[in-house]
Amino acid sequence: MGIDLNCDMGESFGAWKMGNDAEIMPYIHSANIACGFHAGDAHTMRKTVALAIQHNVKIGAHPGFNDLAGFGRRNIPITPDQAYDLVVVQVGALAAVAKSQGTHLHHVKAHGALYNMSANDEGLSKAIAQAVYDVDNSLVFFALANSKLSATAQQLGLSVKQEVFADRSYQDNGLLTPRTQAGAMITDEEQSIEQVLNMVKHGFVISQSGKKIPIQADTLCIHGDQPNALPFAKRIHQTLSEQGLL
Amino acid sequence: MGIDLNCDMGESFGAWKMGNDAEIMPYIHSANIACGFHAGDAHTMRKTVALAIQHNVKIGAHPGFNDLAGFGRRNIPITPDQAYDLVVVQVGALAAVAKSQGTHLHHVKAHGALYNMSANDEGLSKAIAQAVYDVDNSLVFFALANSKLSATAQQLGLSVKQEVFADRSYQDNGLLTPRTQAGAMITDEEQSIEQVLNMVKHGFVISQSGKKIPIQADTLCIHGDQPNALPFAKRIHQTLSEQGLL
Amino acid sequence: MGIDLNCDMGESFGAWKMGNDAEIMPYIHSANIACGFHAGDAHTMRKTVALAIQHNVKIGAHPGFNDLAGFGRRNIPITPDQAYDLVVVQVGALAAVAKSQGTHLHHVKAHGALYNMSANDEGLSKAIAQAVYDVDNSLVFFALANSKLSATAQQLGLSVKQEVFADRSYQDNGLLTPRTQAGAMITDEEQSIEQVLNMVKHGFVISQSGKKIPIQADTLCIHGDQPNALPFAKRIHQTLSEQGLL
Amino acid sequence: MGIDLNCDMGESFGAWKMGNDAEIMPYIHSANIACGFHAGDAHTMRKTVALAIQHNVKIGAHPGFNDLAGFGRRNIPITPDQAYDLVVVQVGALAAVAKSQGTHLHHVKAHGALYNMSANDEGLSKAIAQAVYDVDNSLVFFALANSKLSATAQQLGLSVKQEVFADRSYQDNGLLTPRTQAGAMITDEEQSIEQVLNMVKHGFVISQSGKKIPIQADTLCIHGDQPNALPFAKRIHQTLSEQGLL
Repeated sequence: MGIDLNCDMGESFGAWKMGNDAEIMPYIHSANIACGFHAGDAHTMRKTVALAIQHNVKIGAHPGFNDLAGFGRRNIPITPDQAYDLVVVQVGALAAVAKSQGTHLHHVKAHGALYNMSANDEGLSKAIAQAVYDVDNSLVFFALANSKLSATAQQLGLSVKQEVFADRSYQDNGLLTPRTQAGAMITDEEQSIEQVLNMVKHGFVISQSGKKIPIQADTLCIHGDQPNALPFAKRIHQTLSEQGLL
Repeated sequence: MGIDLNCDMGESFGAWKMGNDAEIMPYIHSANIACGFHAGDAHTMRKTVALAIQHNVKIGAHPGFNDLAGFGRRNIPITPDQAYDLVVVQVGALAAVAKSQGTHLHHVKAHGALYNMSANDEGLSKAIAQAVYDVDNSLVFFALANSKLSATAQQLGLSVKQEVFADRSYQDNGLLTPRTQAGAMITDEEQSIEQVLNMVKHGFVISQSGKKIPIQADTLCIHGDQPNALPFAKRIHQTLSEQGLL
Repeated sequence: MGIDLNCDMGESFGAWKMGNDAEIMPYIHSANIACGFHAGDAHTMRKTVALAIQHNVKIGAHPGFNDLAGFGRRNIPITPDQAYDLVVVQVGALAAVAKSQGTHLHHVKAHGALYNMSANDEGLSKAIAQAVYDVDNSLVFFALANSKLSATAQQLGLSVKQEVFADRSYQDNGLLTPRTQAGAMITDEEQSIEQVLNMVKHGFVISQSGKKIPIQADTLCIHGDQPNALPFAKRIHQTLSEQGLL
Repeated sequence: MGIDLNCDMGESFGAWKMGNDAEIMPYIHSANIACGFHAGDAHTMRKTVALAIQHNVKIGAHPGFNDLAGFGRRNIPITPDQAYDLVVVQVGALAAVAKSQGTHLHHVKAHGALYNMSANDEGLSKAIAQAVYDVDNSLVFFALANSKLSATAQQLGLSVKQEVFADRSYQDNGLLTPRTQAGAMITDEEQSIEQVLNMVKHGFVISQSGKKIPIQADTLCIHGDQPNALPFAKRIHQTLSEQGLL
């Protein structure tokens, strides 16, 4: 029993800064580092890998769409082959940065629209999991808990960590309530903490309709780009730590 | 005695096609494949690697400036650290594509302005050679014959191939005549062939001033983007082959 | 009675060439010039405007998505406000190029996914037509014949040219058969010519189901990027010319 | 007697924010708005123009290199023709945004490396001034005081505002001390204020060597991206206002 805390990192680009990587790094276990397609650049990748090493945080690639203008959050229609290619080159780029810094890549987590679009699309799920497997089959794969992407990656033989969210509500099918629906976001911090504790300690989440839905919480996503990111990261880290759940 | 023929490949981008990769591939030994920064994209990288595999051509990364608008040919001022970062991520990206296709990366050759600017700049030479070494010290490094970049890479312990040109004249210092000077280009095909044969068989080149200058010709650059690229590739391949120099 | 011939132009980007602008220019009346977002760049815009002036061809802006990687053909979800902004800046950019060359912008035609997505979307139709109107309400607006975009632009007070296609089949609703459906493309050149003549002379098109559907053919799109673009442009130009329909 | 305060604005890009436009706008007279090449995007351009209108601030285009990765600050070698094209399209784009918001463009100021490279380069000076003139000869042109660019624009017939700096020291030739030299930056706020007052009231600046150098101070650049930008903007605005110099 226990859970990993992950956070998206390295999202600055050129002269533009984003996020509080240095402040949040002490409270997480796994950094998902942008690879220059939706955010990040070669210099930021190196700097962020160095920061992760310094804090003993595991290094992950965070591949996304080639869409700086939309920060990788726009649902751009792509074929499975295109998704495969996007993942291969981005994972390779970050793996090389890690290697050049004397360490190695630990995991991969798809970003934004690529994460969402592939979560329950069979073709994209297969393509993305296969891309990771083909580059390095010892990489850990982070995927939305209960998703097709998660199942596909496991079937392929990848080591998978099911990802859960503190600030999102769940549906009866075990998946996130779409942001376009009412109640998708959990804004009450107590409720967020409780949801996480339920998931980690008891293996379930209460869906919006009130049902207990089984869920495996291997890693929790900390949103680094939100105003209260740092205090929430500290609090959830402390709470889980006190209960022996990290 | 013998020489390798290399050519820049994979320079299409999205809907834009460039070069005659499929036609030229049969006549070369080493493909320098663009990595998406100055040209190429994730899909083109995979397609070009597949084409190289099919023709039993060695796969190289061809890192350049992050400058699609200028095709990586504009001398953008960068620091050695920035050069290092550019090379690491691009080499990593192409290495992953090769790995995912069941093969491995063989060599690295810098592109355009990065090649030219680093050829005799100590800081950039060290940075680029170190980047390649840090990602994978078994990679072969292609560099301008007689350049500081070539010497630096050798000192670092990389296996280096000295690159020579058929269609460029040389100065007394063993380096290329700058394109801004008269007589930089050799437009007469017979003269080009003769220059190559001199370099391969006898280890020298006749400089513009008429001196015999020592040069080690390990690999010859075939310019794939010129109108007569294909017939010249065929002819130089046949000539060298007939003389047992391939 | 008579029809205008238009063609997409200026789609080269940096070192990458696309299309046969110089060859096709003599056979068209209106050039839709890319504005640097999905294709084209500042230099190409000027060169293409100069070419149009030389051939006495009317100059149009061809705004598209900010998506070089996808050539503006990918359906990227955008809000009407975003569409408005995209059109304003691209029309303004090309208008300035025309002005600096001593002439003026004549028309606007949306490109690729922006054209298709807005054709029957009320919000996008209003946004795009309003953007053109707000920049210069004397501009002519090219829009798919029978589309909501066409109707919206007319209601706003813009001068609209209904655009028709020679190589696409039509549905009973007067709109194009989606490319995903069988029979969307008309590959027989005789049939293409006949369809155009029907539209221009008689104001109807025969739909796939065999019905006569009313259509107003103000301008015909010549696809410049297809293999037979030039001979088709010549032939349709000659045919229409001989019948006094240009 | 009196001086205009100008500031670079609209430098956010997509998801990345930059600057404190809303806070600084009340203290300036002229906004130089990025046009999407080195910073900014279509949406940011519109939002920034709206903000300027709201604060009764004059709207200027701030064209720069097509270099998001380098924020337009890298000296990329370009020809005068390329500079001309860059300026035309960017001025046109922002003029259209202003027009669509019911107002008009007031001035143009080149950004970053384009400003610096053209300041004393005859070819680039002519190209940039001509570009502005050709798009709209009623536009006001902001240029470094005492520069060739400033003189060239005046000779061409443009209305020119000589730009001065509070936080930069001057050389005996009336131009800025290059940043690479010692003493280029004035970090003492009192000294900055005194330099501005000297320039506005007495028409001279004390060069680093202690000489009184004539200078015409038509507009003062407020650097919006520095940590103390807002307090300095307030203070210089108040000081000049109290002395009747605005």
